[in-house]
Amino acid sequence: MTDKELKSKRIAILSPVAWRTPPRAYGAWETVAGNIAEGLVARGWKNITLFATKDSITKAKLVSFVDKGYEEDKSQIPSVSTCLHISKTLEQAGDFDLIHNNFDFLPLTYTPFIKTPMLTTIHGFSEPDILRVYYDHKDSYFVSISDSDRDPGLPYLATVYNGIDLSSLTFRDKPGDKLVHYGRIHNDKGTHLVIEVAKKCGMELIIAGIIQDQEYFDTQIKPHINQSSIRFIGPVDPVLRDELLKEAYAVLHLNTIPERFGLVMAESMAAGVPVIAMDLGSCREVIVDKQTGYLVNDVEQAVEVVGKIDLIDRKKCRRRVEENFTIDRMVENYEKVYKMIFENR
Amino acid sequence: MTDKELKSKRIAILSPVAWRTPPRAYGAWETVAGNIAEGLVARGWKNITLFATKDSITKAKLVSFVDKGYEEDKSQIPSVSTCLHISKTLEQAGDFDLIHNNFDFLPLTYTPFIKTPMLTTIHGFSEPDILRVYYDHKDSYFVSISDSDRDPGLPYLATVYNGIDLSSLTFRDKPGDKLVHYGRIHNDKGTHLVIEVAKKCGMELIIAGIIQDQEYFDTQIKPHINQSSIRFIGPVDPVLRDELLKEAYAVLHLNTIPERFGLVMAESMAAGVPVIAMDLGSCREVIVDKQTGYLVNDVEQAVEVVGKIDLIDRKKCRRRVEENFTIDRMVENYEKVYKMIFENR
Repeated sequence: MTDKELKSKRIAILSPVAWRTPPRAYGAWETVAGNIAEGLVARGWKNITLFATKDSITKAKLVSFVDKGYEEDKSQIPSVSTCLHISKTLEQAGDFDLIHNNFDFLPLTYTPFIKTPMLTTIHGFSEPDILRVYYDHKDSYFVSISDSDRDPGLPYLATVYNGIDLSSLTFRDKPGDKLVHYGRIHNDKGTHLVIEVAKKCGMELIIAGIIQDQEYFDTQIKPHINQSSIRFIGPVDPVLRDELLKEAYAVLHLNTIPERFGLVMAESMAAGVPVIAMDLGSCREVIVDKQTGYLVNDVEQAVEVVGKIDLIDRKKCRRRVEENFTIDRMVENYEKVYKMIFENR
Repeated sequence: MTDKELKSKRIAILSPVAWRTPPRAYGAWETVAGNIAEGLVARGWKNITLFATKDSITKAKLVSFVDKGYEEDKSQIPSVSTCLHISKTLEQAGDFDLIHNNFDFLPLTYTPFIKTPMLTTIHGFSEPDILRVYYDHKDSYFVSISDSDRDPGLPYLATVYNGIDLSSLTFRDKPGDKLVHYGRIHNDKGTHLVIEVAKKCGMELIIAGIIQDQEYFDTQIKPHINQSSIRFIGPVDPVLRDELLKEAYAVLHLNTIPERFGLVMAESMAAGVPVIAMDLGSCREVIVDKQTGYLVNDVEQAVEVVGKIDLIDRKKCRRRVEENFTIDRMVENYEKVYKMIFENR
């Protein structure tokens, strides 16, 4: 298959509809799905269609069955919006050569009814029970987002790391003077551990992100926030995120469960900010220990390596991302996967 | 189409998988779906397949993709079990002449992919937003369970009232001496109003059923329960229900929202027990006012008609059910609907 033949294939990119694509602030799966669509168009693909909310923004063709993200419009029942979005997308399956599913398990249940192949990027296993659906559709095509986030019972075509949009992440060689932590505020992301580290180091800390577990926030985070040494600034869009990273001496990412990929780590490094991350899941695939940040096992080690941040070359952080985690690199890897599917059918 | 031709058609009865079919205690949709399957077999249909949980009991052929009801096995994610149950059932659509869906809106989203017609009994609109899916599949076939429970924007083939199994409901001409209220313990069912009535009448009250809203139960019901004049006995299976109705002077059904059908009212009348019901929704289709119970508009009226229960002929209550709400009558009506579908395609 020539490059020209490949790039004329008709690809449907199925994004979730929890948020707009790309999301205004939070929405990791929509971010990646959007980046795939934009990246394919940028690399010269002629027939890319993004299936996402109606208010989505894309250079691909946009097709929508849901006006707004259900997280942004509480009059919607999520299960209603998702089943309509998915089923009506797949009713058009015959118009495409490949469906690239970025929307979890439900689309798989329609695959026995359509002839077009479906590639599913498994952005995460929210619960072990969802494996029942994946196991039931093992004859489909799967991509993992890190080598560590793989279920041993599933066949994968490849790992394709997420790619991020570098244009909104300014590289700064000069470090800020604060510790920064951002993403979802949830026990999984270890915000409480980050607070512990900041206190022990006697450094200022800025926390940003959506509160995903209100009880966790109210009981374990809020009591520590004083809006001086420990500040909480809520969710950040790409512009605010860039401002935030300017302040960062280091980004702390003390996840308490295995990380699946870790967009936050890639974004931080893109801005030249070293990352201190728990050595769980994909963190060691994203960070190069002692080169672009530090992998640690507990709060004590995190405190210790804050003292070694100056040993990290911030240019190396940026380069790590440029070489491995750009949209272009991601899409280049997806092109290989698409080609594999087309040539093996 | 001859009766013989009709009864040789291959029918798939799709039951929900929240509970076993028939359910051990609560599970209204599973009850009706099960009754349809058993009723068709009893009326001589040769090719009836019930799609339900693996532990279900039926004289039809049973096919299962889910071991147990997700309400009875909390390791299951409901959305995983439902999408597997529905999609794998519909993968077999080609083996059937008709799919009779008793499982809400999700099965409709697979209809564009299958050739077999689907008849959906709309057992209730849990939320207005689910109409988005129904409106999107107006070319499908719908049955309402009462004339009052119809959405004006949808085409219906007929109303088919639910049928109940009379064999487990003993008719007793001699009234009990207690007020009885059973079903889901939820504000919608007006349990708190029933307590008010019982107190004002100075009569003993027995409440039975599953607690569907724990906060409602804890704040509005539990404080009144003394296990003497006001008793709560939890959920009842058909055997316990029969014992309960033996105690009943009248059944109080003071629903605060329009009733869709009201199995409880039919069951009560089958046991010869008059029903005092709020005049909302289908109640006036199930009860004949002043003949098999009383329709009321508030607590005061309910108190008043408790004093008139002796005017009701309990045999008439039973007859009302025998003539209108038996499984056989329900299935007879569904046969007419099935025939309509087969003859108009």
